[in-house]
Amino acid sequence: MAKEITPRSQDYAQWYQDLVIKADLAETSAVRGCMVIKPYGYAIWEKMQQALDKMFKDTGHVNAYFPLFIPKSFFSKEAAHIEGFAKECAVVTHYRLKNSPDGKGIVVDDEARLEEELIVRPTSETIIWNTYRGWIQSYRDLPILVNQWANVVRWEMRTRLFLRTAEFLWQEGHTAHATSEEAVEETRRMLDVYEKFAVEFLALPVIKGVKTESERFAGAVDTYCIEALMQDGKALQAGTSHFLGQNFAKAFDVKFTTKAGNQDLVWATSWGVSTRLMGALVMAHADDDGLVLPPKLAPIQVVIVPIYKNEDQLHAISEYAASIKNMIEKKGISVKYDSRDTQKPGFKFAEYELKGVPVRIAIGPRDLENKTVEVARRDTKEKAVYQFTDLDLKIEHLLDNIQQNIYSKALSFRESNTWHADSIEKLISILDNTGGFVYAHWDGTAETEAKIKEITKATIRCIPLNNPKEEGQCILTGKPSKERVIFSRAY
Amino acid sequence: MAKEITPRSQDYAQWYQDLVIKADLAETSAVRGCMVIKPYGYAIWEKMQQALDKMFKDTGHVNAYFPLFIPKSFFSKEAAHIEGFAKECAVVTHYRLKNSPDGKGIVVDDEARLEEELIVRPTSETIIWNTYRGWIQSYRDLPILVNQWANVVRWEMRTRLFLRTAEFLWQEGHTAHATSEEAVEETRRMLDVYEKFAVEFLALPVIKGVKTESERFAGAVDTYCIEALMQDGKALQAGTSHFLGQNFAKAFDVKFTTKAGNQDLVWATSWGVSTRLMGALVMAHADDDGLVLPPKLAPIQVVIVPIYKNEDQLHAISEYAASIKNMIEKKGISVKYDSRDTQKPGFKFAEYELKGVPVRIAIGPRDLENKTVEVARRDTKEKAVYQFTDLDLKIEHLLDNIQQNIYSKALSFRESNTWHADSIEKLISILDNTGGFVYAHWDGTAETEAKIKEITKATIRCIPLNNPKEEGQCILTGKPSKERVIFSRAY
Repeated sequence: MAKEITPRSQDYAQWYQDLVIKADLAETSAVRGCMVIKPYGYAIWEKMQQALDKMFKDTGHVNAYFPLFIPKSFFSKEAAHIEGFAKECAVVTHYRLKNSPDGKGIVVDDEARLEEELIVRPTSETIIWNTYRGWIQSYRDLPILVNQWANVVRWEMRTRLFLRTAEFLWQEGHTAHATSEEAVEETRRMLDVYEKFAVEFLALPVIKGVKTESERFAGAVDTYCIEALMQDGKALQAGTSHFLGQNFAKAFDVKFTTKAGNQDLVWATSWGVSTRLMGALVMAHADDDGLVLPPKLAPIQVVIVPIYKNEDQLHAISEYAASIKNMIEKKGISVKYDSRDTQKPGFKFAEYELKGVPVRIAIGPRDLENKTVEVARRDTKEKAVYQFTDLDLKIEHLLDNIQQNIYSKALSFRESNTWHADSIEKLISILDNTGGFVYAHWDGTAETEAKIKEITKATIRCIPLNNPKEEGQCILTGKPSKERVIFSRAY
Repeated sequence: MAKEITPRSQDYAQWYQDLVIKADLAETSAVRGCMVIKPYGYAIWEKMQQALDKMFKDTGHVNAYFPLFIPKSFFSKEAAHIEGFAKECAVVTHYRLKNSPDGKGIVVDDEARLEEELIVRPTSETIIWNTYRGWIQSYRDLPILVNQWANVVRWEMRTRLFLRTAEFLWQEGHTAHATSEEAVEETRRMLDVYEKFAVEFLALPVIKGVKTESERFAGAVDTYCIEALMQDGKALQAGTSHFLGQNFAKAFDVKFTTKAGNQDLVWATSWGVSTRLMGALVMAHADDDGLVLPPKLAPIQVVIVPIYKNEDQLHAISEYAASIKNMIEKKGISVKYDSRDTQKPGFKFAEYELKGVPVRIAIGPRDLENKTVEVARRDTKEKAVYQFTDLDLKIEHLLDNIQQNIYSKALSFRESNTWHADSIEKLISILDNTGGFVYAHWDGTAETEAKIKEITKATIRCIPLNNPKEEGQCILTGKPSKERVIFSRAY
């Protein structure tokens, strides 16, 4: 089963595609660029949602829902936003179909043309700020701390499951504040929430930073991001948090009366993560045999497989397994007992490796006699015999250990793939040989950034926060620079 | 505050509209027919989702996600389905906008016309059964028990918040089975789940029944439903569960190898409830002062309001309130302490009545002395003084009692608005005077059903399950009938 997956060393992109499909995470659909998220993949996404939703609520946010459609004219209101978003999108022009005159199927009814076309939301700043105008009159109405879980559509020409799809699922936070300071603080708070989620749940080390002007969200004053490194040495932007200044308040005329009695434009932030994180999860941790899921996001955390030769043995093992399952589940751990008689243990082992189940417990007749079980961990593939006594505590501890280990492994991978380059040649050589994050000096201009991108196919992922000051010279122009930025080829 | 709501007796439709807006449940948006679900309304919907999702998972279902868009041709594949759904819908024809030649705004790029138009899903049977073709080969792949939480769009000309909107949120279950019996059993199981949810969470009595052929879901062999009665005597269909036979398997060529080795078409069900339930919740229980929320769906179950004359009193009351809040929250009850000094207690009382908070606790200086609190319940508006001792248990018990009472009140309302009519004149007279559910004989033909609808504006809501057999004569044609069906005007 696992053998059908292309090895990473042979073709990383094909390995990813094989794995997403074989592990039942997602598949392509009949609609170009749109994916079907299969139950196993969706169960992981649900775990991500639950963890994030709790973190949002713990920081004072509430959920709401805004329309899927946005009037075309809304996009023209924010000058930068239109350039970034209004171009490649799904446009609704009609609201009715009719039977075709030739009696074969159905056609669009030309008489049901919309006066103004509707855009399927690629992001919701415009419709939300148009709504906020009605919600905000006074400083007493602020802050507004709203999040939305939704589907969005961006018409992508080249799509890849989870990483780049025309339709994807995400959350988008949209907050409104009385002062610039408060909005910046919110922007940074949510960046910290994303970092915490990446580290604690995805087991993924990330670098917090700010984007250069060229890489900024269309309409933002500042775009903060978390950047992660994948196993092929390419970067993946795992979440963004934008300080939008008063741009959208100005575009949609959202003013409030301050405490002092003046009228002022409202300050805004927006922030989001998407099903793209599913791609990051796969590419950061999985191996040639399948997924390696961090226990905190695994739909099944422990699987128990009986090893038996006859019905009597199966019966006895099933009783023993049930007591173990019951004991472990009391710790809030999800356990599956797989007693299917249609598949052999070896097949099951391979299947759960493919699915990335963190812990596998095998129980044979000898385990019954000895009151033991065989425990295999997915991350290191180590096996050990555990005594029945306190098995629940041991498994709980093991899951914590696996969660930590997956993180540590990813962190050490990133550390050994982080480089410094002091010339454009060195940058190219690193990118071509190992990939990774490359710290280099840059003169701060969009022109140089674009030239380096053209030459190397690498972009500036971010200017890290708390970046040490270091005098240097731009690797392309030799002009003075005061700090290094991170270059990488990216997803 | 509450005074701004039109009384039910004056204009029921306006009362509903006022209440949904003033209680911050939802509002209309800039996009015709699409609503904004505000945080308070969305918090109630989240509670509904959580309860339903748990019930679906407890009955063996898993969640997945399918594309928002459906190729136009898919709708032509199931003959009945196309008539019901493919007509009034949002049609995506283009995938790009461009700057308009006159430099003013943006226009649709004619060069980016889709080869085949995409329909924004009004329901997902077609795209899902097209996907199931790849998932099902053998009886071992069955059953498939999948649910999807999603937004859908049906282009409605006359819309009302929650009750009828162009875009709405819902869940749609889509299951696949090896036998007709199993599929029918699933259809009925989910109808029972919906009934249980309506009774236990919405506090809403419902009648389970089957639709007549004319009212059936487009593409179904049988449509089962739960029907509820609103305070104005009109019916509201609160959920449907469809036995789809092999119709969609045939349309999308979904076959499986049976245990015996034969090829057979797969049997299907689908079932759904939507944000329409928010409308039912309002119309079934609310009064002229605001919402009356069943405790199990209330985002805030208990609110504590301090009554004080000076800062010292507020300080002392706040300490006492904190201990009470803490004690009650340990029971898993959500409590809000409202110590805002910008509003007077009377204003707060009216506000929480409007929002339907089940229990209000007021604490004044005398309560501090006596170790008491004043407890007011929203449903009956009764007030009582409670001793501090065991207050957590008393509040827990009170919430249960309120949940029960709201249900009982709705049930007795339905009972006193359930009638028998043995002539068309009697049916009209009941509908015009009191409304309600009217049991009457009908000859079983779609023609008679249509005529009665034309004359009375009432539809057959359902043929109740476990309906007693009773010989009678059709109220319109006098032809023989073996059981009564339920007529009502409906939302």
